[in-house]
Amino acid sequence: MHSNTHKLLHMVYFWLKEEHTEHDKAQLIEGLQGLADIDLIKAIHIGVPASTLERDVIDSSYQVSLVLQFDNTEDQDAYQIHPTHLAFVDKCKHLWQRVKVCDSISAL
Amino acid sequence: MHSNTHKLLHMVYFWLKEEHTEHDKAQLIEGLQGLADIDLIKAIHIGVPASTLERDVIDSSYQVSLVLQFDNTEDQDAYQIHPTHLAFVDKCKHLWQRVKVCDSISAL
Repeated sequence: MHSNTHKLLHMVYFWLKEEHTEHDKAQLIEGLQGLADIDLIKAIHIGVPASTLERDVIDSSYQVSLVLQFDNTEDQDAYQIHPTHLAFVDKCKHLWQRVKVCDSISAL
Repeated sequence: MHSNTHKLLHMVYFWLKEEHTEHDKAQLIEGLQGLADIDLIKAIHIGVPASTLERDVIDSSYQVSLVLQFDNTEDQDAYQIHPTHLAFVDKCKHLWQRVKVCDSISAL
């Protein structure tokens, strides 16, 4: 078993503005990398849609994804108001038109 | 840094059938646990929507989530046709009405 018991995954999908450039995407990815300095974060994955086999159920319409692992719900809530996180949002929010978040806590 | 370089995250969200019971949800979670036996999977997180602070951008409409980590895109493609995965789909597909998948490969 490789289960992450009682962990919270904070999954964020970013849709950049219609007229975005590769530079904008790189800027967002660079901004996201700065979040790794936040102690509350136990693991970070900054991604782009993978070229897995196409299937109807797959949504690859976003440009960038961020998955953060926290020890619990409280740490995620504290992350939302962490100065480093707020500075990232201030610096990069002009890049995206839409964000979707799914927060999942381990079911086991 | 806690970055998972070059890793693929396979994120799946399940919406159970309208008339689902807690037992159905437990059955799906039990079925998902069986996937952990698949060698290709490097990490597994089986979750339910967390009670993080409510925000407009959060989607908590799904009932169960599954996040699998693979070393690369090829391993995820191989997982799709792995007998243990196919057996899980056969056994549990009657439980859900909708599935959404996001496959993200590390951008770094």
